[in-house]
Amino acid sequence: MSTSIRSRSFLGLFLCLAGGLASAQSQADRPNIVVYLVDDLGWQDLSVPMWNERTPFNDHFRTPAVERLAATGVRFRQAYSCAVCSPTRTSLMLGQNAARHHVTQWTRDPSRDPSGKTERLGSPQDWRLEGLQPGAPTLPSLLQEAGYFTIHAGKAHWGAAGTPGSNPRQLGFDVNIAGHEAGGPGSYHGEKDYSAHWRNGSRVWDVPGLEHYHGLPIHLTDATTVEALKAVDRALDQKKPFYLYLAHYAVHAPIEEHPPYADAYREAGVDEPESKYASLVAGYDASLAAVLRHLERRGVAERTLVVFTSDNGGLSVHSRGKTPRGTGKNTHNWPLREGKGSAYEGGTRVPLVVSWAKADAEHPIQQRLPIEAGGVRETPTIIEDLYPTVLRWCDVRPPAQHPIDGVDLSPLLTADEGVSRERPLLFHYPHVWGPKGEGYQPHTSLRIGEWKAIYFYQPRRWELYHLTQDIGETNDLAERAPERLAELSSRMMQLLQERGAQWPTVLDTGEPERPIPPRQD
Amino acid sequence: MSTSIRSRSFLGLFLCLAGGLASAQSQADRPNIVVYLVDDLGWQDLSVPMWNERTPFNDHFRTPAVERLAATGVRFRQAYSCAVCSPTRTSLMLGQNAARHHVTQWTRDPSRDPSGKTERLGSPQDWRLEGLQPGAPTLPSLLQEAGYFTIHAGKAHWGAAGTPGSNPRQLGFDVNIAGHEAGGPGSYHGEKDYSAHWRNGSRVWDVPGLEHYHGLPIHLTDATTVEALKAVDRALDQKKPFYLYLAHYAVHAPIEEHPPYADAYREAGVDEPESKYASLVAGYDASLAAVLRHLERRGVAERTLVVFTSDNGGLSVHSRGKTPRGTGKNTHNWPLREGKGSAYEGGTRVPLVVSWAKADAEHPIQQRLPIEAGGVRETPTIIEDLYPTVLRWCDVRPPAQHPIDGVDLSPLLTADEGVSRERPLLFHYPHVWGPKGEGYQPHTSLRIGEWKAIYFYQPRRWELYHLTQDIGETNDLAERAPERLAELSSRMMQLLQERGAQWPTVLDTGEPERPIPPRQD
Repeated sequence: MSTSIRSRSFLGLFLCLAGGLASAQSQADRPNIVVYLVDDLGWQDLSVPMWNERTPFNDHFRTPAVERLAATGVRFRQAYSCAVCSPTRTSLMLGQNAARHHVTQWTRDPSRDPSGKTERLGSPQDWRLEGLQPGAPTLPSLLQEAGYFTIHAGKAHWGAAGTPGSNPRQLGFDVNIAGHEAGGPGSYHGEKDYSAHWRNGSRVWDVPGLEHYHGLPIHLTDATTVEALKAVDRALDQKKPFYLYLAHYAVHAPIEEHPPYADAYREAGVDEPESKYASLVAGYDASLAAVLRHLERRGVAERTLVVFTSDNGGLSVHSRGKTPRGTGKNTHNWPLREGKGSAYEGGTRVPLVVSWAKADAEHPIQQRLPIEAGGVRETPTIIEDLYPTVLRWCDVRPPAQHPIDGVDLSPLLTADEGVSRERPLLFHYPHVWGPKGEGYQPHTSLRIGEWKAIYFYQPRRWELYHLTQDIGETNDLAERAPERLAELSSRMMQLLQERGAQWPTVLDTGEPERPIPPRQD
Repeated sequence: MSTSIRSRSFLGLFLCLAGGLASAQSQADRPNIVVYLVDDLGWQDLSVPMWNERTPFNDHFRTPAVERLAATGVRFRQAYSCAVCSPTRTSLMLGQNAARHHVTQWTRDPSRDPSGKTERLGSPQDWRLEGLQPGAPTLPSLLQEAGYFTIHAGKAHWGAAGTPGSNPRQLGFDVNIAGHEAGGPGSYHGEKDYSAHWRNGSRVWDVPGLEHYHGLPIHLTDATTVEALKAVDRALDQKKPFYLYLAHYAVHAPIEEHPPYADAYREAGVDEPESKYASLVAGYDASLAAVLRHLERRGVAERTLVVFTSDNGGLSVHSRGKTPRGTGKNTHNWPLREGKGSAYEGGTRVPLVVSWAKADAEHPIQQRLPIEAGGVRETPTIIEDLYPTVLRWCDVRPPAQHPIDGVDLSPLLTADEGVSRERPLLFHYPHVWGPKGEGYQPHTSLRIGEWKAIYFYQPRRWELYHLTQDIGETNDLAERAPERLAELSSRMMQLLQERGAQWPTVLDTGEPERPIPPRQD
């Protein structure tokens, strides 16, 4: 190890003397990173099982590229993001929990909070309605400073319209493909200019920067992929390692077909909404396959790490058609309860796979950073963990004064140990997302080990679940296990305060509403 | 005029002193050119009538972008290319008739003549099997020298494999998108990598240079369009006028669907092969629409001239499904006889439309070069005319020693006069294309005014048609109008000799086989 450090210092000196050659050396020395984030992708929206048994959804969907990644890499079966998108994306950018960074809700309009209200409560005052803004040590900005070529492709959704943070180039990306303030596309169809204008929808959803594709039958997922691969080539041509954040707008609404993938579903008798949804799933997978293949073509697959994940639980409280578990709200997240925006597992549990783009145990860089092929991990993880993890992979240190809530997941690449399973994971969503349903009230939840406590701010209520025995959260143990609940609630309050969390606002008084500790009988 | 010449000389001086500003001036001063050439597009494969009456095909196909061009520009109803592709493309590049440039047949393999043989005759010795090669004053090379940014997009098919001429960048193009030696694509489908490999087809048809699109459901027409528009942006960013030669592989075989355009045809009860063909037609038109729109978006439509045409008559002697004129060989070229490769009108008559991308009579450049909106022209034209025409538009002179057979068509943009209707148009195809059928023997034909004479080298036979009275060439007047035939045959021989034509080779002797003059009774 000390030899390697010494040679790296020598390299630093050499860099000053001979930029070109040194950066070529540096490219070989450091991995490329692809964070492949699918929007609104549920825990069951892939053919790789994420539960401890295969579900009908794993047969329903066909995602051979994710299967390939899972076969050569490690699959995390207890991975989490936030309940909605901007909080997740900001946590990834900063390594911080939403309770700390205060982008606790999705953003777009800097003058209008998109949150709903309960009878009694509104959003926290001064949550970061403007979203993430320049100046913070974002993941791409640190990589950029370290010589990486940083590429944003797809949905950004960090900063509100008109603010610098709406532009990924202000947040550390060298290239911005199709990203801005909006959290969804007007349309997935090039024929519609990726706009909702044709159906009298608002222009605020117009996907920016893909004008060359307008009027042509090219799906947004595909246009984004082509542009992303071209940007990768720019990095390689410059002999720089790259960070590609490929964050597809898919599979977010509007659920529009991705031709030709819906046809096989229709022919199998699947209804129209579900066939369209499945086509978006097939489309992200074909894109991933194209990315992996391009990396191989360019000879860099062996030194490129790929992280596959999602920004929140499956879709929404709306039913999307007849799924393999029947019709009804959130049947598509089964065995999880509810979906995106909810306090339950359907809201936050996401697929997570980490692999080299092409496994090659003999490759020096993979010898330095081995990954167990086909590994399965039960250690719980949360989105902000990716920040220290990627920085570690790239040998980049964040500024000492920057507080980080995530932990380096690297030890988990070789064995299911080295990261505590008892580490508390905090989910702070003090907002009303909008849709009515179970668990969509303002809430904070905490997972420690097998246990999960949820506090709803209105009606003020604690729930407690044992996730291993009851992944569907059907059996509330709050009354039967008061000591466990007390332990989790106390830890939750401590974390919220440590992280400077903001609280829902009592509409009548304007005062913050803190959680009321559970009754100790 | 003299003022304008003087100001241009001053400009030349200025160019040396201040490159950037001067080239911006020069860009405003000179038109951009788009030559939009659709491969194998028949005279009836569009919704704009090319005959003097509307046909069922004009209702069958929907090409609103070509309609728009025809409405703002001039439609040539008696326009010709050669009977197959490489000869046409070479004539366009050189301004010369095929009898002169000797690329009389399509090219690909430099060691194998693709022509068939009759019982008695083979190809001319030393026809340019290697195709067009660097060194000649090609249209793009002259424009390039004059400061144009020159873009090749789509099918090239000029030089045989392994020769410099197979690469458009060796022939005067700054950019080559997808062009090489092959005259067709392995597949139109990105999912198939634009290759025929998936159906065990030869790799020689693999479309080059679109690797970023591989594995994605993006049609070749669309990928080519996106790349072409990006290249246009490069020109504009460099403040250069551009020459865009957008020569789609479509609608050449393989007749594969262009989604989503086939569905409307299927739903209307059109059979599968014809629905697919119609989708390729709709696809080239949507591409043209996207080009026109991009030029508007970039603010250069008013100074961009668009030429829409085809490289030979419709498709082939093969039936392609049930067309609006029923099933059977070449029913799709009705009212013309036969199709691609043939001596009859179906082999060589093509659509031709010339228009500003956006008409604006007040624009200075359009005041200098006005085009009659909705004009219809009956003056016959031939593909090599485009060379002097485009050079004239761009104010570029070809080298004095370079023989040019085409004439400047510019006068026809304002009225159907200024180019002689009695000018002889020569078609020299001393090869057997391959398919059997009427008119597919080695031949030379000559059109003068309303009359057309055809000489078939085997069996040695003259035919004579009056095209206005008999566009379908059903009534051979060779015996009834011997004086007319004598006049045409004599002029044909004179032209062939002037242009240094090569003759079919007698297989037994290796001697050239010249036409035998018609019998004078």
